Amino acid sequence: MTVSSKQHLADQGQIHDKVLKVFRLLIADLVQNFNGGHPGGAMDMAAIGIALWRYVLNYAPNNPTFFNRDRFVLSNGHTCLFQYAFHHLVGYQHMTMKQLKTYHSPNLESYCPGHPEIEHPGIEVTTGPLGQGITNAVGLAIASKNLQATYNKPEFPVVSNHTFCIVGDACLQEGVALESISFAGHLGLNNLTAIYDNNQISCDGSVDLTNTENIGEKFKACNWNVIEVENGCYDVIAIVNALESSKKSENKPTLINVYTNIGIGSNVEGKAAAHGAAFGETEVDRLHRVNGFRPEDKFFIPKDVYTFFEDLPAKGDQIVNDWLRLVKSYKESYPDLGTDFERRISGKLPCDWESLIPASFPTNPTASRKSSGLVINPLAKEINNFIVGSADLSPSVNLVWEGKKDFQNPRIKVSCNINGDYSGRYIHYGIREHAMAGIANGIAAFNEGTFIPITSSFFMFYLYASPAVRYGALSKLQVIHVATHDSIGTGEDGPTHQPIALAALYRAMPNINYIRPCDSEETAGAWEIAIKSQGMPTIISLSRQNLPQYPGMSNRSLVKKGAYIFQERIDAVLNIVGVGAELKFALETANILNEKGIKTRVISFPSHNLFEMQPDEYKRSILKRGKIPTVVIEAFAPNGWERYATAGINMKTYGKSLPGAAAYEYFGFNSTVIASKVEKYFSRWNQEHEIRYEFLDLN
Amino acid sequence: MTVSSKQHLADQGQIHDKVLKVFRLLIADLVQNFNGGHPGGAMDMAAIGIALWRYVLNYAPNNPTFFNRDRFVLSNGHTCLFQYAFHHLVGYQHMTMKQLKTYHSPNLESYCPGHPEIEHPGIEVTTGPLGQGITNAVGLAIASKNLQATYNKPEFPVVSNHTFCIVGDACLQEGVALESISFAGHLGLNNLTAIYDNNQISCDGSVDLTNTENIGEKFKACNWNVIEVENGCYDVIAIVNALESSKKSENKPTLINVYTNIGIGSNVEGKAAAHGAAFGETEVDRLHRVNGFRPEDKFFIPKDVYTFFEDLPAKGDQIVNDWLRLVKSYKESYPDLGTDFERRISGKLPCDWESLIPASFPTNPTASRKSSGLVINPLAKEINNFIVGSADLSPSVNLVWEGKKDFQNPRIKVSCNINGDYSGRYIHYGIREHAMAGIANGIAAFNEGTFIPITSSFFMFYLYASPAVRYGALSKLQVIHVATHDSIGTGEDGPTHQPIALAALYRAMPNINYIRPCDSEETAGAWEIAIKSQGMPTIISLSRQNLPQYPGMSNRSLVKKGAYIFQERIDAVLNIVGVGAELKFALETANILNEKGIKTRVISFPSHNLFEMQPDEYKRSILKRGKIPTVVIEAFAPNGWERYATAGINMKTYGKSLPGAAAYEYFGFNSTVIASKVEKYFSRWNQEHEIRYEFLDLN
Repeated sequence: MTVSSKQHLADQGQIHDKVLKVFRLLIADLVQNFNGGHPGGAMDMAAIGIALWRYVLNYAPNNPTFFNRDRFVLSNGHTCLFQYAFHHLVGYQHMTMKQLKTYHSPNLESYCPGHPEIEHPGIEVTTGPLGQGITNAVGLAIASKNLQATYNKPEFPVVSNHTFCIVGDACLQEGVALESISFAGHLGLNNLTAIYDNNQISCDGSVDLTNTENIGEKFKACNWNVIEVENGCYDVIAIVNALESSKKSENKPTLINVYTNIGIGSNVEGKAAAHGAAFGETEVDRLHRVNGFRPEDKFFIPKDVYTFFEDLPAKGDQIVNDWLRLVKSYKESYPDLGTDFERRISGKLPCDWESLIPASFPTNPTASRKSSGLVINPLAKEINNFIVGSADLSPSVNLVWEGKKDFQNPRIKVSCNINGDYSGRYIHYGIREHAMAGIANGIAAFNEGTFIPITSSFFMFYLYASPAVRYGALSKLQVIHVATHDSIGTGEDGPTHQPIALAALYRAMPNINYIRPCDSEETAGAWEIAIKSQGMPTIISLSRQNLPQYPGMSNRSLVKKGAYIFQERIDAVLNIVGVGAELKFALETANILNEKGIKTRVISFPSHNLFEMQPDEYKRSILKRGKIPTVVIEAFAPNGWERYATAGINMKTYGKSLPGAAAYEYFGFNSTVIASKVEKYFSRWNQEHEIRYEFLDLN
Repeated sequence: MTVSSKQHLADQGQIHDKVLKVFRLLIADLVQNFNGGHPGGAMDMAAIGIALWRYVLNYAPNNPTFFNRDRFVLSNGHTCLFQYAFHHLVGYQHMTMKQLKTYHSPNLESYCPGHPEIEHPGIEVTTGPLGQGITNAVGLAIASKNLQATYNKPEFPVVSNHTFCIVGDACLQEGVALESISFAGHLGLNNLTAIYDNNQISCDGSVDLTNTENIGEKFKACNWNVIEVENGCYDVIAIVNALESSKKSENKPTLINVYTNIGIGSNVEGKAAAHGAAFGETEVDRLHRVNGFRPEDKFFIPKDVYTFFEDLPAKGDQIVNDWLRLVKSYKESYPDLGTDFERRISGKLPCDWESLIPASFPTNPTASRKSSGLVINPLAKEINNFIVGSADLSPSVNLVWEGKKDFQNPRIKVSCNINGDYSGRYIHYGIREHAMAGIANGIAAFNEGTFIPITSSFFMFYLYASPAVRYGALSKLQVIHVATHDSIGTGEDGPTHQPIALAALYRAMPNINYIRPCDSEETAGAWEIAIKSQGMPTIISLSRQNLPQYPGMSNRSLVKKGAYIFQERIDAVLNIVGVGAELKFALETANILNEKGIKTRVISFPSHNLFEMQPDEYKRSILKRGKIPTVVIEAFAPNGWERYATAGINMKTYGKSLPGAAAYEYFGFNSTVIASKVEKYFSRWNQEHEIRYEFLDLN
């Protein structure tokens, strides 16, 4: 900030005070309107809002998706009225006063849901579940850092945006936030500012009931700058100064600890009661009066308050135009980079990406986690949309390509061989599965398609990551999760590491692909789907152990149908469904049964959700439901298979610590045993014909 | 420690060195034996092991479940050989050398699984998934603190045990651990010592790749003592001194930061390669030679090494006998307390607990979260086995009883009204859902039945907690999770807070009850089951919104059957299944259909897993599968219902931010609409008779 702008800022005390009053009354009115919502935090952060939207943020109300805008994330999403109301004041066109009044209403076309939603203009990520927003913000800052390191040139800072995130007391208690805070400090993300709305109140009451740590010292220990603002409900100038100072941080992210007072001015100021309920008509009327406004003037915004913000849309247009000019001359100076940058902005992959996928694979037994590496490593190496990482299982998940460079803090010196800076595209996330998935969401949310983040861990640990995976699916963010060691075949690590019920979660979850390929060919199909699934995350579920390969039988292009005939048999009287690592049992069992004269066909069924998208006719041709019985073989809980199969060889208990092959054997996954069980079931089915799902107990 | 014992310790340098050598060779041999496992950490912690099991821990190898034993938790569970091998040396009878050699073998009767498992003697909790162990340890320390505050009297420290937990680099990155560390510091748990095996290596390589925070300062900021031990691979005396000092901490938990060197002595010392693989025969042979042992002497333990530990079983017996005598005289001095203490040790509830459950409930519409409070509050108030808490949703989950006292650090002064010390049984867990569930597991693991921990949050946030909930189920720990706001009826908070797929996870998970009661009566039944389910956690899934009450129809004693006839109809041609908050739609729909002449009966179906336990005959009598169609109405994904129903009114997408009633309406949950859909389906079913699950699209 220049000296003159500092003087200008100091002169604004009177109008700031007026905006603060008007803003807080507006919040109180809006929550009272439908008698529900969260007023307290929105009110106490009003000065932060003035500092951000009036003075600090680079953004364009007329162009909410302007590529180089500063990203703002409201991690304490329940205070969303704060953001909606400022969006109204600063001139976002969609956020009319009429719209503001839809908050907590039954209006189906509302832009003001109970938490910010990414679908709406000006909202960077969906928040609400605490700790996710700050984690997304770390991802947004990583995305920006990587683009800066990849594209910026002297005189051409084509990517220069900063990420700001407001966190509440609650966000700073959630594990996912603590993981991402630690990681942001490690990475030295100086383009990230967290603003702590330190009102010391949560639903249960004083934060002292549950958290008495020294938050500033904790952040400092995590390599963050810490700035304090004492009078956070009023001192706009101090907040502006702190924000400006944070933008100049050399090598650390910044926490601005803003001391505030929840529900400021109301009769529940400083109390938990200010958090999540309307104040009541009497109190709202009183608030109007003591602030010098008439109780009957609800939702009242005086002209000078609008005037205070009125130049912002034009200023935003100017910012956009300046940037467009910069990019134009950048492209002239650096034509190749400029073309590549434009492709990234458009969110596209190079058009020849599919040619990088191997046309065929070795036929020796191969773990599908290795197959996955054969497919994606060449793409990840060549195509800079991919930003790949692992929650400390790099040696196990096969995502490291030859010559990979880490996304790394250039100031970090490590004893082992390190090859990294901010232009790297491989992220060692540490043992932080949940943050990994949330950060990947943030990277994806930077701009659709600019990045396709790939995460990786053992499948079991995608339970740790599940809240963030869900928010990615809910938010329509394309992230690819590589989940290896996906069954009891994981072996000696035992039941803690052997997933049984987790697939049931992801198969039930809307807007996510969960794909379990049976060999390298199907793994190629899974990757093609994942890469083409814009607006949708994918989990590719892979084996630790070697799997047979099925050249001529497995078919990558049929994976997208979810299920297909793997081995046809004319006049089949029985279907056997195989999935992923367990497909081999299906094939062996069918062979035994065919030899015994029971005509059996084999279905490969890598994905429920993809199968659900097929027309009924296709589904019928695969399953022949009601005509012949279908037995599924999968070492997971049967839940969900009942829709497709009439019986199953599944898991009813947790796994066991045994070598992988022994674990399968222990639970009865032995084709001779299975064939004998299925034979008995088949004759029973023919006799009874009672249609229900049978769990074929193997022990 | 006395001066003479200090001198004794100083004199032991030679034998310590020998034990260290022998122990490390043993680990190398055992991992080489089946060519798999984790040697590096187990080797680098050998000096910690001597300090613990030889000098510091109070325990009894002949009596592994001795009530007042110190609890030891290996949070870095992959290093389990460390614990198994020390258990062998100190004389746990089950841990023979033959047993040790079953590590990573296909032996079905092994006590040496790939991670420690609670079922086995001397193992306090199942660990492996990182961050869970330290979280459980916080729970174990809370349990002990609460018992101390409840039962100890001057001269009668009947509960005096300490909790020790080893954590690795990875545990200190996991969010769940960071939550519980913050909380343990807040609570001032001076009976908890975390020992940090600081070898700075994880799977990906140096920890510097991903975490460069100042761990000591971070713990200090979280109100922990921090002690450093420089030469952690060898300096047994320094470790003993640190451990003893930590036991005397006045008001803080202690972190002992022990600098170690992974795979010490091997050719991969200090490298990630030492973490999770055998060293190879050549290297193991070399290790034998350089340590002065013959390569052919595998698993060799010299007599003087056994001798060094040989008095420990007798010492343990003495500790047990001393404690039994103490308890006996305590009971004489404090007969009532003594009787109560014995009951707690035996893990029993007072025999009249069921009489505290209300026999009937108000018939006005009641949210089932409120019903739940009516049931459990009187029990929690009176019965000290219950230790209740909330992840900052106390005002919403109705678990606060009149006059409840918080489990709280007595040194904490808070502005709001606080009524708490370590004898309190209500825990404000903060916004730490995952740690809450993991801590509850630890409390339950202290001694079976001594505590029945109750946790609470919105159902959606049991996705955050899901890894810990799963480990509770896997570990057979009785914890009761009260999950409110369990459907789109949650309303304005929107899709982030409205669960759709989560029930599918818990219905697929082995060894856990997931129960969705429809009214107060069924809620009473759910609680009875939860309280009687020893060795099993329960999730009680409750509504935010008011629900009709069904006196004379709902039946608490039938909840345990999972499903029952709610409204019978002779010669029914159609079943309608209702669940929890959506039962009302089932009843209304049935009434409409019955009026139209379609004879319809109504089934209440609060729990899949309980229904699965019923005999086939009962199941058939409820569902009449294959005879008549069954339509389920539930505002969740249909997955799992296909086993019981032929069609469903369910959710295929995420929810929407609308007032609860409007959200139901928006997604088509309107009995007139439903009845018309079901009528069409019914006629289709009669014509086609193709048996498959139909999702009846309502939009």
